[in-house]
Amino acid sequence: MSQSRFERDTAVRRVDEHRYLGTVDPGWAVIDGAAPNGGYLMALAARAMREGVAHPDPVTLTAHFLAPPQPGEVEIDVEVVRTGRRHSTVTAALHQDGRACTRLIGAFGDLGQADGLDRMDRRPHPLPPREQCVDATRLSAEQARSSGAVPPPIFQRLEHRMPEGMMDWAVGRPTGRGEIGGYLRWPDLPAVDPLGVLVVTDCYPPAVFNLGGGAPVGWVPTIELTVQVRRRPAPGWLSTWFTTQAVTAGYLEEDGEVWDADGELVALSRQLALAPRPA
Amino acid sequence: MSQSRFERDTAVRRVDEHRYLGTVDPGWAVIDGAAPNGGYLMALAARAMREGVAHPDPVTLTAHFLAPPQPGEVEIDVEVVRTGRRHSTVTAALHQDGRACTRLIGAFGDLGQADGLDRMDRRPHPLPPREQCVDATRLSAEQARSSGAVPPPIFQRLEHRMPEGMMDWAVGRPTGRGEIGGYLRWPDLPAVDPLGVLVVTDCYPPAVFNLGGGAPVGWVPTIELTVQVRRRPAPGWLSTWFTTQAVTAGYLEEDGEVWDADGELVALSRQLALAPRPA
Repeated sequence: MSQSRFERDTAVRRVDEHRYLGTVDPGWAVIDGAAPNGGYLMALAARAMREGVAHPDPVTLTAHFLAPPQPGEVEIDVEVVRTGRRHSTVTAALHQDGRACTRLIGAFGDLGQADGLDRMDRRPHPLPPREQCVDATRLSAEQARSSGAVPPPIFQRLEHRMPEGMMDWAVGRPTGRGEIGGYLRWPDLPAVDPLGVLVVTDCYPPAVFNLGGGAPVGWVPTIELTVQVRRRPAPGWLSTWFTTQAVTAGYLEEDGEVWDADGELVALSRQLALAPRPA
Repeated sequence: MSQSRFERDTAVRRVDEHRYLGTVDPGWAVIDGAAPNGGYLMALAARAMREGVAHPDPVTLTAHFLAPPQPGEVEIDVEVVRTGRRHSTVTAALHQDGRACTRLIGAFGDLGQADGLDRMDRRPHPLPPREQCVDATRLSAEQARSSGAVPPPIFQRLEHRMPEGMMDWAVGRPTGRGEIGGYLRWPDLPAVDPLGVLVVTDCYPPAVFNLGGGAPVGWVPTIELTVQVRRRPAPGWLSTWFTTQAVTAGYLEEDGEVWDADGELVALSRQLALAPRPA
């Protein structure tokens, strides 16, 4: 079976009991030639982390981003801290040429076996029907090319549909609220798996870019990202909504929800990041 | 200067370059004789984690709870992963008699030096004025004693004021919404420091107890808790609000906000826990 680009670019190879090798592909950067996306690094590390345990799904995974790796080979050292009946707890250190890049800790479970209370008081953010949305993959590429730039690589890895105006921060017209979201799917896989969900929670421009009111557009380094994966998504389009509501002394959170085509909650995410600094 | 009970019960002692000893006090359990509270274990570990770095405040701290330690001595092994200008990243392993109890990773900063964009689109949950609230510390003790139980130790460590009815899940009358909150402060310190905030984010009965509608009251083990501390609280009462809005196949989140007496956001917290199982 041929692999999808996501599967290929997050493949890992075990080299000894605790060490895996992976290859950071430049096609998952936020800006061409810049640091790879945090969600992509999480997926790469998670593939190694789950290798040695019986539980395949990251029910909660936290990553701290210390230094961006360059495209090329990275080492992922994995420690299985505890294996229980329902969950395994695993840590990982992703490094390159002796430089610590990312540290992770996660609890892995089996969402196919999960069973217990269900009560849903969240609702997906009301988006316009997908047919009324903009092809944001194409729009983003056009916006970039019109200013002589290369399209943001990671944004091009997914098929995006977004409400009109959602990406207009890029042309000086933020929505005025710290929000971003839309529909997305892989171009080459029928469903997003729980590792792909990690990428989804960190694949958009920061919600803070839509805040406006003098908030500059600039580098928004993620300090820490935690993702709770609640469900293996149904095939089809996912819908997402990310919000930044508290920017304090340069720190901001970005909270995300991911829902699947069946209208079920797939993931909750939250990151701590640094707000852009005025130029 | 005499220490507060919180400072005394979270004191740590360095025994070699990477190892600290602390003592788990039984007065911070959720139920008398049961596991110590997760926020208390985080504060104990954080005191060791920040010891070797120049940054005193946990701007984001994640803990995974693997096994509850017994009251008595615990070892905390600390690794400073990276020291930067603004943040230091530190991991810790809390263990007892060779048994892994808690694993943590955090980014420590200096909130006294934090400086950057401010934009607040969150508001504290509207609580009745404190004078109209119930002395929930006393109420909780009375509720426990009336059923022949010992008052929940950790709840007695703080002075609580709560809206009428908030604790009536204990007498079979949940509010019907996955929510809990109120006002609190230390009885023996004028302000809660950022390590005390860690306790505050995990000191109440679970919000899911107020859900009702057949959701049982029972053990709610925290798998993982992440706290973003945004500000050193002003002296005086803190106000809090915790919500559980998505219970899926037995997994739930509890999201918290902590505000200080100046009306400033002090912390955001989120945990992943397991819903109580029907008896």
